Amino acid sequence: MKGTSPPEGLLKRLRQDHRFLITSHANPDGDAIGSELALARILRSLGKRASIWNCDATPSIYSALPGAESIHVGEAAPSGFPEAFDAVIVLECPTPDRTGHADRLGGLPLFNIDHHLGNDHYGELNWVDTSAAAVGVMVHRLAKELKVYPDEATANCLFLALVTDTGGFRFSNANADAFEAAAALVRDGASPEQVSQWLYESRPEGAVRLLGEILSTLERHGDGRVATVVLEPEMLASAGAQRGDSEGLIDVPRSIAGVDAVALLRRVEDGYKVSLRSRGVIDVEAVARPRGGGGHRNAAGFVVAGPLERARSEVVEALAGAVERATGAADDEEPSPS
Amino acid sequence: MKGTSPPEGLLKRLRQDHRFLITSHANPDGDAIGSELALARILRSLGKRASIWNCDATPSIYSALPGAESIHVGEAAPSGFPEAFDAVIVLECPTPDRTGHADRLGGLPLFNIDHHLGNDHYGELNWVDTSAAAVGVMVHRLAKELKVYPDEATANCLFLALVTDTGGFRFSNANADAFEAAAALVRDGASPEQVSQWLYESRPEGAVRLLGEILSTLERHGDGRVATVVLEPEMLASAGAQRGDSEGLIDVPRSIAGVDAVALLRRVEDGYKVSLRSRGVIDVEAVARPRGGGGHRNAAGFVVAGPLERARSEVVEALAGAVERATGAADDEEPSPS
Repeated sequence: MKGTSPPEGLLKRLRQDHRFLITSHANPDGDAIGSELALARILRSLGKRASIWNCDATPSIYSALPGAESIHVGEAAPSGFPEAFDAVIVLECPTPDRTGHADRLGGLPLFNIDHHLGNDHYGELNWVDTSAAAVGVMVHRLAKELKVYPDEATANCLFLALVTDTGGFRFSNANADAFEAAAALVRDGASPEQVSQWLYESRPEGAVRLLGEILSTLERHGDGRVATVVLEPEMLASAGAQRGDSEGLIDVPRSIAGVDAVALLRRVEDGYKVSLRSRGVIDVEAVARPRGGGGHRNAAGFVVAGPLERARSEVVEALAGAVERATGAADDEEPSPS
Repeated sequence: MKGTSPPEGLLKRLRQDHRFLITSHANPDGDAIGSELALARILRSLGKRASIWNCDATPSIYSALPGAESIHVGEAAPSGFPEAFDAVIVLECPTPDRTGHADRLGGLPLFNIDHHLGNDHYGELNWVDTSAAAVGVMVHRLAKELKVYPDEATANCLFLALVTDTGGFRFSNANADAFEAAAALVRDGASPEQVSQWLYESRPEGAVRLLGEILSTLERHGDGRVATVVLEPEMLASAGAQRGDSEGLIDVPRSIAGVDAVALLRRVEDGYKVSLRSRGVIDVEAVARPRGGGGHRNAAGFVVAGPLERARSEVVEALAGAVERATGAADDEEPSPS
């Protein structure tokens, strides 16, 4: 299974049209930014105009990507854009709302390129391949079909998309096709060492110091399967960290042997913003949703009232319940004794 | 370039002989352990006997690998082994000394399988492929030549070998062939998610708490390109950590943007054991060697006398010198103005 090819209709329009707006989802991740930048380069190499407009800023971790400085962020008048476009290419969005600025895309033909289950085929043209580990892999395939041979910068953008969407080749979508796509990108000039340097070797000092602060608050609860850490505003100050620097730090306590569910409680105005992570079948979305939050099975969040001790107790009790339900469910799945 | 095939002579002897001793280097890493376990499984599936003997214990991080409990460690009488062997297969050793127990291997035919530059072809049979990202990739190739189709456990052992020797596909040896080898291993049943769980999601709690303690000692020096962290015995105690739990923690301060050389000073009897890490052309081996230590360009170590402030100053001064020499060398490489 090597995934689907781009539909002929899409290839035809990409060859015919001249002025493309490229966009992706709010809070863009590596697959969004990497795929956008690569697609813009590919279209420009065919003599087209291509501009990237996102509703949210590019996270600093991706700012070293070639062309990242040219991405437009939420600057256009609500009613439109300062230049004219023939079409909008929407990357990695299961619905147009996910772009965060669907209202101003309305008048233009939409081309929908995505790999999410449940994409609702909202485009005039739609290419949805749920087997693709990243939209970056689809953009690479698109380049080949358009007879564009990616340069090193394009290959690096697409490689970064693939690395980030597979969790550094650690998630279950790191399948054989994903590794073959990586091999093809490296043959086209991508440098895993360079991309890793951007992603993993350029951490703000404040984020590293903040990790130390957060780990000093680590507690394990009950049988140890639930762990919690806390982030108070004064820790940001003493670490010299920015608010965004706490991104991803929850993965460190989650990596402890025997920890199946973890919460980071971050002090906000009137309580704590709680980020939850879990392993396997433990469903933290079911913890977050009844409390007014949301997310996915293994990553969710909600806000809880303070003070800290009360908030922490509530979170621990809820997580312990989720762990217990998952254990019970797993037991139920075992064959009954005969 | 897909690397070399195993020599016919080696294949013939592996088919002919029956009782194999498999070994690898002292302080075995993931490529050593993973390749040994996989090769033993491959030979056993051909009806052979295969025992693994190493001079050092298996690091706990690899103890979940299938068969790891059957590895023999430095138990044999110095003169030999309690069972008879037809041949010794030495994996990942540029010289027989690297096994740490070459003296007792002496009487047996040696088959040398390695990927190191400078391997001195010490075996009766030698297969050295310096293009292989890991010896695990060579063992996978060997299985195919022997018409053994690796089972899931074997594929996982080889995948772990490849992951660890490429730094999680982040080092410069993560080339297109390495990704293709990964794809082939995943097709044979390797689970990147399972291997990542073993390697990255099973950290001792003490190691994670110790990371927090170490980060609280972080200092940057001069223009910030040199950083130091300190590990005192009381930090081990308060983190509930073992001595081995500090392994790898130095990589966290090294990941800070702008830090090019980092030292971890670990208190020992009469001073500090210093671990050094650097980026690119900055040569920390040149810092360690004149001080009675050793290592490689980007990872080295030595022992320095205390007290802490004096030790830290000496280390910082030496590292600042190494950074400066590297910067000067890089400048020299630039074309001269004309």
